[in-house]
Amino acid sequence: MSQREKDPRVPGDDLTLGDLGEADILRSVLARFRTGPGEAPGVLVGPGDDTALLGTSGAVLATTDTVVRDRDWRDEWSTGHDVGTKVVVQNLADIAAMGGVGTGLLVTLVAPAGTSVRWVEDLTEGIAEAAAAERVPVLGGDLSSTYGPVMVSVTALGELPGSGPVLRSGARPGQVLAVHGSLGWSMAGLELLRRGWEPGTGEDAGVRFVTYHRRPAPDLAAGPAAAAAGATAMIDVSDGLVRDAGRVAAASGVRIVLDEEAIRKRADAIAGILDDDVALDCVLRGGEEHGMLATFSPGVVDALPGWSAVGHVEDGEGVSYRGERLSGGGWDHFGG
Amino acid sequence: MSQREKDPRVPGDDLTLGDLGEADILRSVLARFRTGPGEAPGVLVGPGDDTALLGTSGAVLATTDTVVRDRDWRDEWSTGHDVGTKVVVQNLADIAAMGGVGTGLLVTLVAPAGTSVRWVEDLTEGIAEAAAAERVPVLGGDLSSTYGPVMVSVTALGELPGSGPVLRSGARPGQVLAVHGSLGWSMAGLELLRRGWEPGTGEDAGVRFVTYHRRPAPDLAAGPAAAAAGATAMIDVSDGLVRDAGRVAAASGVRIVLDEEAIRKRADAIAGILDDDVALDCVLRGGEEHGMLATFSPGVVDALPGWSAVGHVEDGEGVSYRGERLSGGGWDHFGG
Repeated sequence: MSQREKDPRVPGDDLTLGDLGEADILRSVLARFRTGPGEAPGVLVGPGDDTALLGTSGAVLATTDTVVRDRDWRDEWSTGHDVGTKVVVQNLADIAAMGGVGTGLLVTLVAPAGTSVRWVEDLTEGIAEAAAAERVPVLGGDLSSTYGPVMVSVTALGELPGSGPVLRSGARPGQVLAVHGSLGWSMAGLELLRRGWEPGTGEDAGVRFVTYHRRPAPDLAAGPAAAAAGATAMIDVSDGLVRDAGRVAAASGVRIVLDEEAIRKRADAIAGILDDDVALDCVLRGGEEHGMLATFSPGVVDALPGWSAVGHVEDGEGVSYRGERLSGGGWDHFGG
Repeated sequence: MSQREKDPRVPGDDLTLGDLGEADILRSVLARFRTGPGEAPGVLVGPGDDTALLGTSGAVLATTDTVVRDRDWRDEWSTGHDVGTKVVVQNLADIAAMGGVGTGLLVTLVAPAGTSVRWVEDLTEGIAEAAAAERVPVLGGDLSSTYGPVMVSVTALGELPGSGPVLRSGARPGQVLAVHGSLGWSMAGLELLRRGWEPGTGEDAGVRFVTYHRRPAPDLAAGPAAAAAGATAMIDVSDGLVRDAGRVAAASGVRIVLDEEAIRKRADAIAGILDDDVALDCVLRGGEEHGMLATFSPGVVDALPGWSAVGHVEDGEGVSYRGERLSGGGWDHFGG
């Protein structure tokens, strides 16, 4: 597809970015991201100047994550709104996993001129809604063209409300590994979509998983709450329980042992819809979940709402389950 | 080109990103960006955890800018090192144009698996050198794959050393428009490259322009110095004098009048190499220069080293030169 050619996925009466031009696109996007007076008191300078200026409380958390069409999402399964939700949530989950709360986002869109304006508006709406749900203002961004796939890159800034940062390196033998929220729902939803799942086809119990895959909805307040309760290490589940627990194990120089009964219980919640072995794989290796995974001193987890133990920390290395060391599997962008 | 196919531009004995895989690429890139102990005292948490944590002095400047292969650079004319330099400089110039200094960078690379590892190392070197030259640490980033062109996205964070922020909206009638550094050099260099310029072909006077096009070298300290001296509005010249002055005029609700003699003098400095009309176009419309453009109360500029007046501010709107209102021209990413 050449740069000016209309994307075949764009319906006949839809405008493309090339029909509008940069100035009009920016005007319409900036309008959606503009916050009202008093809505974002930390924003000293918002979108439209050389940079934004954000008030901080002495230190700023910063992270960035990018999604690429046909690599990180498929248009058959995800709308622009879904993509916008997901890219915001995955960035803010990284902030939460340090024990922080988001304070601002920068959004970059790189897209071919043949991209549907309606799709971009839908994306923008998803970004704006997900940001507003976490009370995080969009501070600015960039717009650029490409002859390749649409790409959305977000940078999230945040701050520590009191405790933290909680690093990956603080887990110690004798501590408890716990998770907040779901495990494997996003991968279960993806698996259902791969199998041609559609609403109303007698598998309505799958709706929750497909919905979670499209618009992950972790409770990000769990991150700062865990920090305040003394979490010793934390990460969000973005590449699967085994792989992300493995990162904590490697950074902390410990072994993490997953609890068979806790994992089995998680898998059972999915197994009504998918085969037992697939359900177990979702729980152990499913990514894009974005709930919090943290270690605590014994006894802390029981008093923390929404958290449940899924393992413990020992001397050694790696992640083990039923006496075997597991490899994370998961996605390598370059397949090497 | 499919994702795994080797880029035809990669020499036969070069490794590609697909040969290495994500973990090895990240290891080699992170190693280059790692700062030694004490080198970056503001960095409380560096690359490798969920987010970075950067100490701030009460407020943080934030901006992002992306470059795309064959759109923002051509491999015949720019090395990976050149691209790395440029994307860092253009981001830090935005920080400087607020009156700020850079405090941290996030770097995202989106590239096909067929990309040369050597090219990526060269890019990384360019980014690391340009960042080190401004004493700005790389805090983290992201790596992703694509079937489209290589793309490098940088987010720059910064702080105000005392004065500022200097917005685009503060220019008032009666004030002086001044520029720090060169005008039109980058466009003159690009023009020479387009005409097949090569070193040693009897046009060695062109070296300075070609070099500046490849690795723009504005003095970014001019931004905070201007802020301290009371600059009323500021922007960096990224899309050309007329277009960027036009942004100041629009944001401030004023007319900016360019001074004929000052512009002519600037064009004369290029006219030895290019035709007079092309040289004038370089000065008026040449982008990617990244020097500072600011307005000051009368009398201030004469005492400010490196700054020279190029116009003044009046009641009205737009940018005028020799009695005519100019349009900015310049690049529209979507050609609309």
